[in-house]
Amino acid sequence: MKINAENIAPTCEKFEWAFEFLGKPWTGLIIRALLHGPKRAKEIAESIPNISGRVLNQRLKELEDIEVVKRTVYTERPVRIEYELTEMGKSLEPAMEEVQKWADMWWETMQKQDK
Amino acid sequence: MKINAENIAPTCEKFEWAFEFLGKPWTGLIIRALLHGPKRAKEIAESIPNISGRVLNQRLKELEDIEVVKRTVYTERPVRIEYELTEMGKSLEPAMEEVQKWADMWWETMQKQDK
Repeated sequence: MKINAENIAPTCEKFEWAFEFLGKPWTGLIIRALLHGPKRAKEIAESIPNISGRVLNQRLKELEDIEVVKRTVYTERPVRIEYELTEMGKSLEPAMEEVQKWADMWWETMQKQDK
Repeated sequence: MKINAENIAPTCEKFEWAFEFLGKPWTGLIIRALLHGPKRAKEIAESIPNISGRVLNQRLKELEDIEVVKRTVYTERPVRIEYELTEMGKSLEPAMEEVQKWADMWWETMQKQDK
């Protein structure tokens, strides 16, 4: 399929949607934390320095809405709430790994630029 | 290296920096367009429906500032200005491919959710 302006639109749209969603502050880190398995909000927060409880809850709700994350309530005493990646979420792992590799490769260069 | 809160900070920072930069609207699409080789701003704009000239120029300047893109002025008549990815920019290709694969995989599901 020769890429031209007409048929690039759909690929653009999908690509842009994915980056827009992944690029939201903290989203990438939350997904990456959950790649290690189900976690409670407190455990996620512990693995992401500087994230506020409010922002974490907001992002988890957004991720739940688009079915990248599943929320399970265990009706124990006290109640336990766990978050885990759905299949859609787990399949982000290769993209996460590539972004991490790129970031590791160029972080020093960027720091030297001091930008 | 066992990942714990102390040593996760540097990986978090790098990871977050990469996603924040890649997540900016249009940045991913501009980089992807330049993965096909050097282009003039007009050619980039043609491959990205709906991007305005102002936003494109702004993003190209930002990408130039962090040395992901190189700008070359050919002093012909008329002057020709080309943009191309630096080595740092080109090494984003694997991450771009993985994000595209993920987006292709889940776009329909997302549309059905109508979110």
